[in-house]
Amino acid sequence: MNIFEFEIIKKDEKSSARAGLLNTSHGQINTPVFIPVGTYASIKTLCSKEMEDLGAEMILGNTYHLYLRPGHKLIERAGGLHNFMSWKKPILTDSGGYQVFSLNPLAKVNEEGVSFKSYLDGSIHQFTPEKVIEIEHSLGADIIMPLDECIPYPSSYPFTKRATDFTMDWAKRSKFEHEKGEDKEKQTLFGIIQGGIYPNLREFCANFMVDLDFSGLALGGLSVGEPSEMRFELVELTLSFLPEDKPRYLMGVGTPEDIVEGVCRGVDMFDCVLPTRNARNGTIFTRKGKMIIKAARYAEDFSPIDENCGCLACKNYSRAYIRHLFQSGEIAGLRLATIHSLYFYLNLMKEIREAIVRGVFAEWKKNFLEEYNARGLKETQ
Amino acid sequence: MNIFEFEIIKKDEKSSARAGLLNTSHGQINTPVFIPVGTYASIKTLCSKEMEDLGAEMILGNTYHLYLRPGHKLIERAGGLHNFMSWKKPILTDSGGYQVFSLNPLAKVNEEGVSFKSYLDGSIHQFTPEKVIEIEHSLGADIIMPLDECIPYPSSYPFTKRATDFTMDWAKRSKFEHEKGEDKEKQTLFGIIQGGIYPNLREFCANFMVDLDFSGLALGGLSVGEPSEMRFELVELTLSFLPEDKPRYLMGVGTPEDIVEGVCRGVDMFDCVLPTRNARNGTIFTRKGKMIIKAARYAEDFSPIDENCGCLACKNYSRAYIRHLFQSGEIAGLRLATIHSLYFYLNLMKEIREAIVRGVFAEWKKNFLEEYNARGLKETQ
Repeated sequence: MNIFEFEIIKKDEKSSARAGLLNTSHGQINTPVFIPVGTYASIKTLCSKEMEDLGAEMILGNTYHLYLRPGHKLIERAGGLHNFMSWKKPILTDSGGYQVFSLNPLAKVNEEGVSFKSYLDGSIHQFTPEKVIEIEHSLGADIIMPLDECIPYPSSYPFTKRATDFTMDWAKRSKFEHEKGEDKEKQTLFGIIQGGIYPNLREFCANFMVDLDFSGLALGGLSVGEPSEMRFELVELTLSFLPEDKPRYLMGVGTPEDIVEGVCRGVDMFDCVLPTRNARNGTIFTRKGKMIIKAARYAEDFSPIDENCGCLACKNYSRAYIRHLFQSGEIAGLRLATIHSLYFYLNLMKEIREAIVRGVFAEWKKNFLEEYNARGLKETQ
Repeated sequence: MNIFEFEIIKKDEKSSARAGLLNTSHGQINTPVFIPVGTYASIKTLCSKEMEDLGAEMILGNTYHLYLRPGHKLIERAGGLHNFMSWKKPILTDSGGYQVFSLNPLAKVNEEGVSFKSYLDGSIHQFTPEKVIEIEHSLGADIIMPLDECIPYPSSYPFTKRATDFTMDWAKRSKFEHEKGEDKEKQTLFGIIQGGIYPNLREFCANFMVDLDFSGLALGGLSVGEPSEMRFELVELTLSFLPEDKPRYLMGVGTPEDIVEGVCRGVDMFDCVLPTRNARNGTIFTRKGKMIIKAARYAEDFSPIDENCGCLACKNYSRAYIRHLFQSGEIAGLRLATIHSLYFYLNLMKEIREAIVRGVFAEWKKNFLEEYNARGLKETQ
């Protein structure tokens, strides 16, 4: 298998779900895969050794954040992001597009790129497609993403069209820039499909990206506040324009239900801050839905978060203890909640892959969603 | 060996240092021992499994904090502090005296005990010697401490005398209360010697505590702001009144130098928040003194904190990476710094024990202090 070759191992018969293998310079990834987010070169509260123990196959670094701090050149001098954070498996870096637009309401965009103010010192920076590729070459991730304009929901058709046009033009420039690079065979570039909620723009953009022959295709702007039903209609529509033999990445998604629904429609890759961010707020993902660990009902509940779970938190600590750590502001609480939630997500992906390979995905999905949505622990949403 | 028997394995010939074994209901401790502080049933940023990995032999729980949150009765219902926090080795609980007095400037003390306001809800609480023993019985630590009045530095002779008198009376009442308990053979009570900076009060209090025949003797009020020279004169003086065959515990001490000096004078047990608290502020203890990891000089220093150290942080991460985590407010930075500092302290104790057993403590001490105090990394006091 060549570097960045994608191989489909098994297709589900009753849905578009597929199990695959994606090769990278830092080893193989089993798909469907969930990619934990390590914004500042750390999955919040954890270090890379713990991510290995949890069985993560790939992690994500945020280009925008790492560019601002500690700077891509410093990371390049450290031998790249893998060396800097001591992570030997594959890494994906996003393009910074989402952050520039969502964190900088005053960002100025034109065909050249986007300008924004650093939240650290107020200095002005410009991301162009070429600049972002330069930064991502310094970071050295296995899979890199081109600058795109993330489109908020709701947005008008003219606004969406203009942003999608920029994204398409930037994708072309990014590809050109990437292919000039010396190490282009160690990193691969995906294309990002925008188009907002407009089917014809999604179709046009999808066809454009397919024609550019990226090694993978990402669906952008699909967890930006739109209703979940609309999201999956757009996912289904967009995927219908894509070749089967390229990996498909649904960026920034999502809840366990979102992931299952995405897999069902043919998505291979997901990333999301949800399990880690929610965990730090005391909302823990479990097979039986979300658990608000600070709830008074857990004060004297000496059972683990999930007695069938094999994570460090569940094997050693009780709900009462973890609740107490949260109540006392102890960092160990944030960590144990994060560890459980990531373990749950990563094992969810393993189960999904196994179910697809064994040809029982439809049944598995039904059972999983029933258990996940049954009253049980579900306390919010 | 009976529970709580203390056995001296080797005495140093050139100093009062000794290596020993202290038996408890939860196993043996090698002395001299450093006891990391787990205020709220967590060594801050870590969980008990990590403390095991670090090789901690015993940890300390704060009676004052655990009484207020989550409450000793809850911990009793969890099966005691060992079960609650999933820590199988010995635990020591302090008496809360230090916290009541240092955290509650308005605490009211009389011969009965001390009253204070909860910092959580403003409610009024009273600690009497009997109440503290009741709380510590609920917590179930192996070694428990009686309520004492911690004397600030400087304090007048009359103030110090009155406080020392209370401490002595409370020690007697604590012993009586403890010995009424059903499980008294599973927990053992130490005596605390106060007396401030006044030699005759230290002597009187020491003799009083020796006569009460506690299974160990603690030196209290000796890291409360007094000059280090005075501290060790008082340690030396006080230890001279104690029998050789009981373990001696210097409470709340201290820096690596303090520990070496204490051992040299015959101290067997130490606890201190210094390695963990300093680590969270970015000050890391190393063989070559303290390292201020946020310093600009480490921004591109891709070597580990200490290349000869075997801790998780040093084996995997660079100074530059850990500095970046601190600069970015990442919890992983606090953890890696804590892990290194505790590993350093715990291995320091191992080295001290080995040096005593091998009969080379004096030489070891000289070499250690030379390296620790040499310019090298030493950047602050």
